Amino acid sequence: MLGADSPNGRDPGGDTLHEECGVFGIYAPGRDAARLTFFALYALQHRGQEGAGIVTFDDGVANLHKGLGLVSQVFNEENVATLKGHHAIGHTRYSTTGAVTLRNTQPYVLETFDGPLALGHNGNLINSPQLRRELLERGVGLSSSSDTEVMIHLLAGAGGPGTDWVSRIRVLMARAEGAYTLTIGTRSAVYGVRDPWGLRPLVLGEIEGGGYALASESCALATIGAAMIAEIGPGEIVRIDDAGYEIIPGAVPRKLSFCTFEEIYFARPDSVFRGRLVHQTRQAIGRQLAREAPVEADIVVPVPDSGIPHAIGYAQQSGIPYSEGLIKSRYIGRTFIEPTPELRRDKVRMKFNPLPANLEGKRVILVDDSIVRGTTSGPLVALLRKAGAAEVHLRVACPPIAHPCFMGVDMASRAELIAANLTVDEIAEHIGADSLAYLSIDGMMAALHEREGDAPVEPEIRLNGNGTGTGTGSAAPLAGYCNACFTGVYPFEGVPVDLESKERFAGIVGHG
Amino acid sequence: MLGADSPNGRDPGGDTLHEECGVFGIYAPGRDAARLTFFALYALQHRGQEGAGIVTFDDGVANLHKGLGLVSQVFNEENVATLKGHHAIGHTRYSTTGAVTLRNTQPYVLETFDGPLALGHNGNLINSPQLRRELLERGVGLSSSSDTEVMIHLLAGAGGPGTDWVSRIRVLMARAEGAYTLTIGTRSAVYGVRDPWGLRPLVLGEIEGGGYALASESCALATIGAAMIAEIGPGEIVRIDDAGYEIIPGAVPRKLSFCTFEEIYFARPDSVFRGRLVHQTRQAIGRQLAREAPVEADIVVPVPDSGIPHAIGYAQQSGIPYSEGLIKSRYIGRTFIEPTPELRRDKVRMKFNPLPANLEGKRVILVDDSIVRGTTSGPLVALLRKAGAAEVHLRVACPPIAHPCFMGVDMASRAELIAANLTVDEIAEHIGADSLAYLSIDGMMAALHEREGDAPVEPEIRLNGNGTGTGTGSAAPLAGYCNACFTGVYPFEGVPVDLESKERFAGIVGHG
Amino acid sequence: MLGADSPNGRDPGGDTLHEECGVFGIYAPGRDAARLTFFALYALQHRGQEGAGIVTFDDGVANLHKGLGLVSQVFNEENVATLKGHHAIGHTRYSTTGAVTLRNTQPYVLETFDGPLALGHNGNLINSPQLRRELLERGVGLSSSSDTEVMIHLLAGAGGPGTDWVSRIRVLMARAEGAYTLTIGTRSAVYGVRDPWGLRPLVLGEIEGGGYALASESCALATIGAAMIAEIGPGEIVRIDDAGYEIIPGAVPRKLSFCTFEEIYFARPDSVFRGRLVHQTRQAIGRQLAREAPVEADIVVPVPDSGIPHAIGYAQQSGIPYSEGLIKSRYIGRTFIEPTPELRRDKVRMKFNPLPANLEGKRVILVDDSIVRGTTSGPLVALLRKAGAAEVHLRVACPPIAHPCFMGVDMASRAELIAANLTVDEIAEHIGADSLAYLSIDGMMAALHEREGDAPVEPEIRLNGNGTGTGTGSAAPLAGYCNACFTGVYPFEGVPVDLESKERFAGIVGHG
Amino acid sequence: MLGADSPNGRDPGGDTLHEECGVFGIYAPGRDAARLTFFALYALQHRGQEGAGIVTFDDGVANLHKGLGLVSQVFNEENVATLKGHHAIGHTRYSTTGAVTLRNTQPYVLETFDGPLALGHNGNLINSPQLRRELLERGVGLSSSSDTEVMIHLLAGAGGPGTDWVSRIRVLMARAEGAYTLTIGTRSAVYGVRDPWGLRPLVLGEIEGGGYALASESCALATIGAAMIAEIGPGEIVRIDDAGYEIIPGAVPRKLSFCTFEEIYFARPDSVFRGRLVHQTRQAIGRQLAREAPVEADIVVPVPDSGIPHAIGYAQQSGIPYSEGLIKSRYIGRTFIEPTPELRRDKVRMKFNPLPANLEGKRVILVDDSIVRGTTSGPLVALLRKAGAAEVHLRVACPPIAHPCFMGVDMASRAELIAANLTVDEIAEHIGADSLAYLSIDGMMAALHEREGDAPVEPEIRLNGNGTGTGTGSAAPLAGYCNACFTGVYPFEGVPVDLESKERFAGIVGHG
Repeated sequence: MLGADSPNGRDPGGDTLHEECGVFGIYAPGRDAARLTFFALYALQHRGQEGAGIVTFDDGVANLHKGLGLVSQVFNEENVATLKGHHAIGHTRYSTTGAVTLRNTQPYVLETFDGPLALGHNGNLINSPQLRRELLERGVGLSSSSDTEVMIHLLAGAGGPGTDWVSRIRVLMARAEGAYTLTIGTRSAVYGVRDPWGLRPLVLGEIEGGGYALASESCALATIGAAMIAEIGPGEIVRIDDAGYEIIPGAVPRKLSFCTFEEIYFARPDSVFRGRLVHQTRQAIGRQLAREAPVEADIVVPVPDSGIPHAIGYAQQSGIPYSEGLIKSRYIGRTFIEPTPELRRDKVRMKFNPLPANLEGKRVILVDDSIVRGTTSGPLVALLRKAGAAEVHLRVACPPIAHPCFMGVDMASRAELIAANLTVDEIAEHIGADSLAYLSIDGMMAALHEREGDAPVEPEIRLNGNGTGTGTGSAAPLAGYCNACFTGVYPFEGVPVDLESKERFAGIVGHG
Repeated sequence: MLGADSPNGRDPGGDTLHEECGVFGIYAPGRDAARLTFFALYALQHRGQEGAGIVTFDDGVANLHKGLGLVSQVFNEENVATLKGHHAIGHTRYSTTGAVTLRNTQPYVLETFDGPLALGHNGNLINSPQLRRELLERGVGLSSSSDTEVMIHLLAGAGGPGTDWVSRIRVLMARAEGAYTLTIGTRSAVYGVRDPWGLRPLVLGEIEGGGYALASESCALATIGAAMIAEIGPGEIVRIDDAGYEIIPGAVPRKLSFCTFEEIYFARPDSVFRGRLVHQTRQAIGRQLAREAPVEADIVVPVPDSGIPHAIGYAQQSGIPYSEGLIKSRYIGRTFIEPTPELRRDKVRMKFNPLPANLEGKRVILVDDSIVRGTTSGPLVALLRKAGAAEVHLRVACPPIAHPCFMGVDMASRAELIAANLTVDEIAEHIGADSLAYLSIDGMMAALHEREGDAPVEPEIRLNGNGTGTGTGSAAPLAGYCNACFTGVYPFEGVPVDLESKERFAGIVGHG
Repeated sequence: MLGADSPNGRDPGGDTLHEECGVFGIYAPGRDAARLTFFALYALQHRGQEGAGIVTFDDGVANLHKGLGLVSQVFNEENVATLKGHHAIGHTRYSTTGAVTLRNTQPYVLETFDGPLALGHNGNLINSPQLRRELLERGVGLSSSSDTEVMIHLLAGAGGPGTDWVSRIRVLMARAEGAYTLTIGTRSAVYGVRDPWGLRPLVLGEIEGGGYALASESCALATIGAAMIAEIGPGEIVRIDDAGYEIIPGAVPRKLSFCTFEEIYFARPDSVFRGRLVHQTRQAIGRQLAREAPVEADIVVPVPDSGIPHAIGYAQQSGIPYSEGLIKSRYIGRTFIEPTPELRRDKVRMKFNPLPANLEGKRVILVDDSIVRGTTSGPLVALLRKAGAAEVHLRVACPPIAHPCFMGVDMASRAELIAANLTVDEIAEHIGADSLAYLSIDGMMAALHEREGDAPVEPEIRLNGNGTGTGTGSAAPLAGYCNACFTGVYPFEGVPVDLESKERFAGIVGHG
Repeated sequence: MLGADSPNGRDPGGDTLHEECGVFGIYAPGRDAARLTFFALYALQHRGQEGAGIVTFDDGVANLHKGLGLVSQVFNEENVATLKGHHAIGHTRYSTTGAVTLRNTQPYVLETFDGPLALGHNGNLINSPQLRRELLERGVGLSSSSDTEVMIHLLAGAGGPGTDWVSRIRVLMARAEGAYTLTIGTRSAVYGVRDPWGLRPLVLGEIEGGGYALASESCALATIGAAMIAEIGPGEIVRIDDAGYEIIPGAVPRKLSFCTFEEIYFARPDSVFRGRLVHQTRQAIGRQLAREAPVEADIVVPVPDSGIPHAIGYAQQSGIPYSEGLIKSRYIGRTFIEPTPELRRDKVRMKFNPLPANLEGKRVILVDDSIVRGTTSGPLVALLRKAGAAEVHLRVACPPIAHPCFMGVDMASRAELIAANLTVDEIAEHIGADSLAYLSIDGMMAALHEREGDAPVEPEIRLNGNGTGTGTGSAAPLAGYCNACFTGVYPFEGVPVDLESKERFAGIVGHG
């Protein structure tokens, strides 16, 4: 099951996709920028639980505090009080590389000829090995294997002394390839940047009482009482400062390729993308799934929490009652205690408990958002059966994932992706479901593009043992999304052959 | 809103009831008792997040580890490895007194003439000032103001040297008045005890592969692969040891008075009380609420997470679609950062975000489990309206709480209980709901006693501005539950006049 | 080398004796008792580095803070601020039992019928197994294997409710056998108690500006600006309260048996015992050692730091210049890093570095305070030789230690004591010294009793391969000291056969 | 009193000079370089107690661990085990700037085009503002205000890709002005560098069993069983690698200006400079002081610990017996507890206790290494008098300090230096000494240059109320030392006018 976890606490051993970060920026004269940033990061906690940081700017000086752990663990009244100033950027981090160290925690901060510079990044560059090499050739040393460090040095060195920041950002955008949503802080302004493909989200809000804020998701704006006023477009730069906000072209936009998984799984359901509430989008996906893959059953049960809106949509469309069948432990506290051998067989029990009386004798439609490695689905199906379910039909709110991501999602390698190795029928057998269906890619695109009043996409697609569907799906509905993990078609011309080249380049390991 | 929080992370400032603890005991020859206890406590985490402890018994010696924080924070492989033995007791703690100190963390352990003795307690004694005084008069010094310390000293001193443990437990039961569910560990056995009123739950399970376990809730049994075989009755002692298990009368049972709030809110929905899954009970309550207090509307929305099963029941009965309208932050990490003045008005936004597109133009039935001080309901209603709800009708899954609890629930004082000071109409106005209805006490009892195939309780009760109902409510349906917080009728004859007397007696303050 | 370490940081692996604790008490109207106690404990840090605690009394309530580590680590402004009141007791702890846990940290505090009671203890009871058994038989449970817990329960239970504290202390003194110096805090007074043998020290001081204080050593009084006014006598109780101070007979004094090692090694050199500065006493011992065991040499070199005053005395008497030959690392930070195999041979190098140019070609008299297991002396001698010393003559400021201590000093077991197993000649050969001499017991007694103007004790004793001397030593000079570790003659009639019986009785192990 | 503290625990409020760091490097095939580095840093702990770090090189990768606190706190078996490799550099840090943050802890590590590069630094550049500006102009961003970061970036960027490290180091040496002793680690070698003035020490040793090591002081070599083979000369580079060691000219040596205070106070007495044991040098200084400033007295007493060797020398020369008069607390644990108002007057009592019986009625010569602000000397003199001293004559082992240091010693500002504001007579009166004499600069130089067999420098200098002497002091004896703090003559032509310019340049503040 993909994604049952990330918005609810990271689960490194779980069968889950991981997002790489949340970014935030604020310029709010007369306000305590650090405090507002804290609450915004708190709302973006689902985008990274390994570290957090805030940089404020006050009287030309950058004030920094960052640390490992949850936002609430990193910050306290004492350190927030040191973060003076009315403009700031902040970051929550999920690390794709093994070691979780303070050194890699963001934002990065550098002093430059033109004053302090802070950078927070969500995404992943595909040409960072080349960029690193260029910096190293120029004699700039690097202290980590991080893309973000590469970008901040590019910014610091772009143009000569005195070059304005927009020009520098444009230099960076001309050179960087891949996914990058950035917030940038300087002495007198905060900038937001979205890559030309629009792979990762970025929104702009107006703060009640004055000032503007930038965030990965609108939920962070809502939390601090700001109203969303725009989604930043691909290739755009937005500057917020004393003059208000200005949206500035930064690079020629490319074919829009917003990560589908932001819609399906990563984003909080109360965020808004492309003008639509994510929860609504997921309900539409659930409805489409019900149209494509109907089955006679007694109840629709989600894999909590990420499968809930999909399941609600499925129930709406099918008329089959929505119910709860699994309770998920609410306590994040990761445990490192090894289960006894007897418990190990039932490892999924540590996280989910079934509700037998709700399931007894029932034909259950279990709705999950995705399947990555397929290691959780089987135990979940078995758990439901043991709790009395008469039948278990698994419905998955996206197509099979058969290709790795190079744009910042921490997915399993291709060898581990179950759909890269087995057919849908084989997967169904592997996990022991009475039936299994994935949403078709056309259906998914239709659901993503559906607007109220639209005629529903008619399911010419039939459940045929290949959940990706055989529909007539034109290219059109794909417009605007990156579906590379489903299709293997990446938004860039040249995808790096050797994913690990970046790692090999990194000559420094350790803490401190 | 009562209870939206406790099973999901404690919220000291919130409008929430708090349970006082989870207990566990295990006797399992050949098994790693500490490890199994760890996973059971993990499953009982919702009953106390302030501290946890495990005591194992091995070769006549008690091995102890306890600490402050979540179960996953207190225990690690290293300290679990020191807890040798195949029988153990464990405890998760919520503290009603101000200071959270290691000294008060349970289990308590004492060496006695007859070997080490460990005690874990869930509940609250009402005659502890008298018991303390008696101990002090006998020359026994006490190191805390805890009821549990009083009980362990009573056990240690009952009878003379060599007195068997069942006899000692009976002495304790003859003296103690109030709520107490205990697990007790000695050199050769583990005991479970439930007070004569049955105020707090205790269940017995059989471990797959051999041995028995005792737990506050059956969810802990399920997590470690044990099957529930009995709920321990009021006044009963159960001993588990090499001979298996034995249920022994401990004290004359009094009128059964199981805490209604275990059913409504405290317990995990996957636990079973009185033979019925708590989730099912809550659905029945929701259905009854729909019968008693119907209203024309477009969607039924729960206050997550504790209102969900009630809302599902309401939706089932009413035929109005179930939906989500509020997203709750999944991150426990309590923050101590003060919001800015602007944010303070919207404090509920730190915890809940609305889903506008789900709510826009809709007439919403908001289902909450309870209302304690009423400080959260108003902001929640306002939040829904601001997000577009056309109407907000609040339905509460229990009657108004107008009386404090002396049996171990950390409720507000009478002065703070909104229903002790305002009528239902006044509360509705205070919180700004289009309508407000509480479940009637008769309806609640009917739902608690309802069994499949029962005819539904007909709502002679009408919504009339006094949600406690005017039904003909016989005593019968009340059988078995303590409803003192609704009715002011306590299960004991003499309720302590001076709640704080216990505190005044405590002469020691501090840490270490 | 005995004792090179304890006043300078504990060294568990070293060849060192360890003291068991420092006690303090204060009654000072109008003063911040906790703060003064903090600085006094800081001055008593050499008597225990494993934990510390302070209990103050304010308005009938005992305020407690204790923790593991150095005094400066346990206390900070925040927790000192919570310790209100003008009377207090404090404790620094060295633990002889394996586990260092908060549970065993002192002072112990109990609520009794007559208010809170706090107890700090320095010493060791020899009849605690019997006392424990009696308490357990009375039905009093115990939570640790500590003598101190036994004593506080004896105090709490002595007489009936309302019994005055002096009477209770007398009951305790009548029952306890062994070494105990106590400070006791109650609602309205602080008490000091010294056992009838006077094994451990206790002094009384008057605070400049008003009030009185009790301390293990006078150095603590000096640190807080108090003047020593008396050494409390064996079997005496002293009470300090609003009425000033009163010295009260507590038990019939026995033959005075003050621990010789307090004079030789444990106490800080700036403390005063029996009216004489410890540094002076140690110089006198050094002078006596020079008379008894002269040798032609170029320099007198101490084993720092504890051997310094002895060496200064030796130099004075012999006329051979005092010099430094070894530098000791000043950093306590115990390291747990294992040395490489090559370094392991030179383990003493981690702690001592030689000063080659001071030693080169020199005949060196190395003065150490004592030898316990003999594991350090050999490497030290080798180190000096390697650094160029032509000859190394080891002189030890006390007789050979051949018997274990049961009165609170953490000495090696008999099997480990080198002098219990080898003759002085064998030891000299074992450690590779050119010559080795211990001080005779008569000489030591003479030095301890020497007063200015005394004729020096003439060394009839000759260096003859048995450093304990063959003098005519009458009993007289032994008066007043416990020399059991040298002579095997213990101050008590019945010494426990089974040292470990206390441990076997302890049924509880663990942390929390 | 200057320096009573630094080798024994930092005392930020004390009247003490502070050194800025200890450096170490090792290349030892087949050995566990990290473990040896750990023990070497442990021996260099007196040169910095705020942070420590180790970088090892293994298979082209740099492995780093650093942290705040003592060496023994930063490292444990677990993290040392991650530091694979047989060559390494290490660092102990004392920070002159306010905030102690991990970010500034050394060694610094960068990845460069030619592999990882690590740098540890002891000293202070006087032209870092210019160097920073040049880097910033080149577009290199900086993350701290540290000189060390400036130097590592200069190294990384010197020459083009592929430039060898010796060439790069020469570029750095051509540009950097001020005090810098460096150890540098690269993939295949370790380098040591000493600035052209030789301001800070650096020694080379041969490891028993193979390999070489570089250290600030020879005491670190001794601790790991290495023999010192050379002191690195001013302007020299030494490379240690598979080929052994090579000493290479790096920059034209300037007039040798070794910091006098390394000899007088900073270095451990068991280190060797210019072929002579520091302890011997200090004795020679003490002897010279006795010649220059004799006084009739009964005992010579050091201010422990740093005054001890000077006092031993004074006693040797004068024939007046050496004694102890002050005991210094051995516990580093800095306390942050504020003393009571009464104690504040006696603040020196927290650190020193007098030995009254040693002092009573005695005429005391008190020997201290230096006086900086003069805040401790007065209280010390008063302490001795109160303890019974009949007279107190203060003798100081160096001339008056009247000028601030720009080369890495954390001295008071000029306004705070007592000798910059008062004459020696005034100082004597201020501190209440019966007489006060400083060593003359000629006498100090003579003592530093004295070799065994030298005729002593005859004290033409007389004690005349100006301790700096009126001797004929030729330039000759000054050869080789920086005496700027005494003379105001700095080794550089241009001393920065504005000491704080470096700080003003730093645009980043904070932790993380």
